[in-house]
Amino acid sequence: MRKQLIEPTLPSGFRDYLPSEAIVRSRMLSIIRSTFERYGFDSLETPGVERREVLTGNDLDFKMILYDAQTSIQRRGGDEPDTALRFDLTVPLARVVAAHSEIRRPFKRFQIGTVWRGERPQSGRYREFLQCDIDIVGSASPLADAEIVACMIETFRALNVPRFKMRINNRKILNGLASYAGFDPVQIPVVLRVIDKFRKIGRDAVLRELGKPLAQNNSATAEGEEAEESATGLGLSASVVERIGSFLDLSGSTDELLDRVANLFRGVAVAEDGVGELRAIVSSLRSMGIPEEHWILDHSIARGLGYYTGPVFETYLSDLPAIGSVCSGGRYDGLVARFSNQAVPATGASIGIDRLCAALTELHTLESPRTIAEAFVAIMDEAGLPDALAAAGELRAAGIRTILWLGDGGFKEQLAYAVAQEIPAVVIIGSDERSAGTVTVRNMRAREQQTIPRAQLTEMVRNLLAK
Amino acid sequence: MRKQLIEPTLPSGFRDYLPSEAIVRSRMLSIIRSTFERYGFDSLETPGVERREVLTGNDLDFKMILYDAQTSIQRRGGDEPDTALRFDLTVPLARVVAAHSEIRRPFKRFQIGTVWRGERPQSGRYREFLQCDIDIVGSASPLADAEIVACMIETFRALNVPRFKMRINNRKILNGLASYAGFDPVQIPVVLRVIDKFRKIGRDAVLRELGKPLAQNNSATAEGEEAEESATGLGLSASVVERIGSFLDLSGSTDELLDRVANLFRGVAVAEDGVGELRAIVSSLRSMGIPEEHWILDHSIARGLGYYTGPVFETYLSDLPAIGSVCSGGRYDGLVARFSNQAVPATGASIGIDRLCAALTELHTLESPRTIAEAFVAIMDEAGLPDALAAAGELRAAGIRTILWLGDGGFKEQLAYAVAQEIPAVVIIGSDERSAGTVTVRNMRAREQQTIPRAQLTEMVRNLLAK
Repeated sequence: MRKQLIEPTLPSGFRDYLPSEAIVRSRMLSIIRSTFERYGFDSLETPGVERREVLTGNDLDFKMILYDAQTSIQRRGGDEPDTALRFDLTVPLARVVAAHSEIRRPFKRFQIGTVWRGERPQSGRYREFLQCDIDIVGSASPLADAEIVACMIETFRALNVPRFKMRINNRKILNGLASYAGFDPVQIPVVLRVIDKFRKIGRDAVLRELGKPLAQNNSATAEGEEAEESATGLGLSASVVERIGSFLDLSGSTDELLDRVANLFRGVAVAEDGVGELRAIVSSLRSMGIPEEHWILDHSIARGLGYYTGPVFETYLSDLPAIGSVCSGGRYDGLVARFSNQAVPATGASIGIDRLCAALTELHTLESPRTIAEAFVAIMDEAGLPDALAAAGELRAAGIRTILWLGDGGFKEQLAYAVAQEIPAVVIIGSDERSAGTVTVRNMRAREQQTIPRAQLTEMVRNLLAK
Repeated sequence: MRKQLIEPTLPSGFRDYLPSEAIVRSRMLSIIRSTFERYGFDSLETPGVERREVLTGNDLDFKMILYDAQTSIQRRGGDEPDTALRFDLTVPLARVVAAHSEIRRPFKRFQIGTVWRGERPQSGRYREFLQCDIDIVGSASPLADAEIVACMIETFRALNVPRFKMRINNRKILNGLASYAGFDPVQIPVVLRVIDKFRKIGRDAVLRELGKPLAQNNSATAEGEEAEESATGLGLSASVVERIGSFLDLSGSTDELLDRVANLFRGVAVAEDGVGELRAIVSSLRSMGIPEEHWILDHSIARGLGYYTGPVFETYLSDLPAIGSVCSGGRYDGLVARFSNQAVPATGASIGIDRLCAALTELHTLESPRTIAEAFVAIMDEAGLPDALAAAGELRAAGIRTILWLGDGGFKEQLAYAVAQEIPAVVIIGSDERSAGTVTVRNMRAREQQTIPRAQLTEMVRNLLAK
């Protein structure tokens, strides 16, 4: 009787990270974590599973497809609440802040955690990915927005990400567009959704789409969907479209652009507020010494998510703009209000580490190490086992990452393993070495070896690795 | 119209880690990760969501309650497979090994990841917790088991866990008990489940339960349930129970115990194998210099999970034995066979970090930091903002974890915040300091402050923190 094998496969939209990728990711996460901490962000951890209404806010327009996470007992009924996997780390933060009034504000927290979204598999997107978030809760000051931008830029610099630029805008300016251009404020979300395609489809296509007649079934584009020009438009009048065009056509250096937006929107209070906040952010970034090559004002970015209320940020790689934003965020002063009657201002941003890794791999700036091991201790014969074990113990005690051979093969197989894994140092204690009280250390990169007194093993390996 | 607030609560069995706990956990994880790496384990990451049959092995006896993770689209049918959240990290490892023949063996990997189990909420157990696993795949040598034990003991020592002991046994010895004591080998699993209660209910209760008559509905105790004496027994004959008793009564030092087990089971091949493996593990641990105060042979531990086939390990805190094992594992040579016709030996162990943290908190050996921030830069007035920002930027560039005040309050509120958060250094640049080109640094622990030339800020704070 032959048993039925189970296929060792993953559902589509999910993936493994084998060591060479996992090692690089883990190094990146460690740099991200320590940069976040340098900016005074503290760690917070929340579970993957949340109550459904916490995640959706009971919003009838909630479009994200959630992963429902339930046990069979729950589904059969009973008094357990309906639960699902989180789709971001911001909503759980808002829940924590509302539930824990003892947390001192301003509260600066970072969270590195997995999120799940039921994206359609054909789009090639992942359904499970890791986000690295920083947020500041309880500060309405543009200084807090500037800290978010500064911290993310410093994180990207610490990661050695080549040629990146954070683009900064303010929703308040875009909201002012309604009264400046003369369209109904209820249309702001759909107008912003079209303007948000500016970087992808260009000025003319955006204006065409704004002016094209409305179709019967003009269903709003779902969050995260491909931003292509729609067959149907918003049906805005030619004069409205022209005014939106004159807004999009503004350009100039940071300070010129701010002046031009201010001039265009003179008297539109919300937009003037927005310009003021951007001026404060710009001067803060300059005082903090954040290089201007890494940030720019861009009055065309809107960010899809409905909850943003003020400054918004997106980050593009100049060498790979097509992969989209690798770090985005903004101010969301209304989110905590889902859980509490208290008004709690908040701002933050998130790095999508999976997308960033994919981009850096495409740009060939990532290493691909086989292992973290630095030394390999061979086992030459049964009688040499105790000495090999003692040597491995010593190296490890000295902080040297050491593999002890655990397989079946002889020295040839062992060396082949060390070569394949690209382990820089191989330690050999054969019968000759044992009777002489020595040890042979092979430098695999230099292809040379040296037999030294046994007592010098750790020092020798350390020197070899330092080269 | 007042909107309906959503309660900011979690489903039962789930919890948040606010900063003071999350900071400590994160430090522990960093120590765990680096110790695993010193032993040459490489990182592997697998997703939380797996195909259901991968997790259950289509085993009709599979008793764990899984969290099903599905989208509404999946549930409505279509060609997406049935999916659930992983309940451990070992089954996903077996899947990866079966799917990736290119991975060099022996394969040493660690994984730190979240797992989910649908435990009954009333038992006070968590339904989502973090496991830290090390495994060696592709080595049948007891040396691999010894490496697992050694690495876990070194990890606990690096974590400064007080008075812990890893208990080591071999399933093969327990399997030999059937032919030694004279019961049907099919009863081995149920007999082991009773013997596994030895440390909880004692020798006499175990023997009573083995001999007590079988009841009609003697359903097997589910994995993870409270191990109390059952009302019904296994109905073993008095002579069988007596022989099991004489096995359990064996005692002595490590080497004496091995000799006594060998004597008792002379001629029972599987048990003799088991003793031989334990002897090899013992001599390896001694050669590696792993202190004997941290490990012991214990012929009564069995480990509940069905998949163990050889050496098994459990770890207890001497000052808090009641919380159960905080690090367990063993050899499972059959698990990869679920996915592949290839026989792949494997051994490993897992730290339950949530249980370990809870235990260390109870033993008062954990710190409870308010924040990771080391310095606080006050904002004295509007005109001082650029200088405060520049100071924060400098400190951060020097690697000092720095909070810049982002709130509304004046200096009094700012100082209250720094005191409450226990931030050791406060940096003040008021108008006096600005006109004199100085900065005031307050040492919050020593309750003293010093005004120094502005250029010495970073050095001064660094010295203050080093004290």
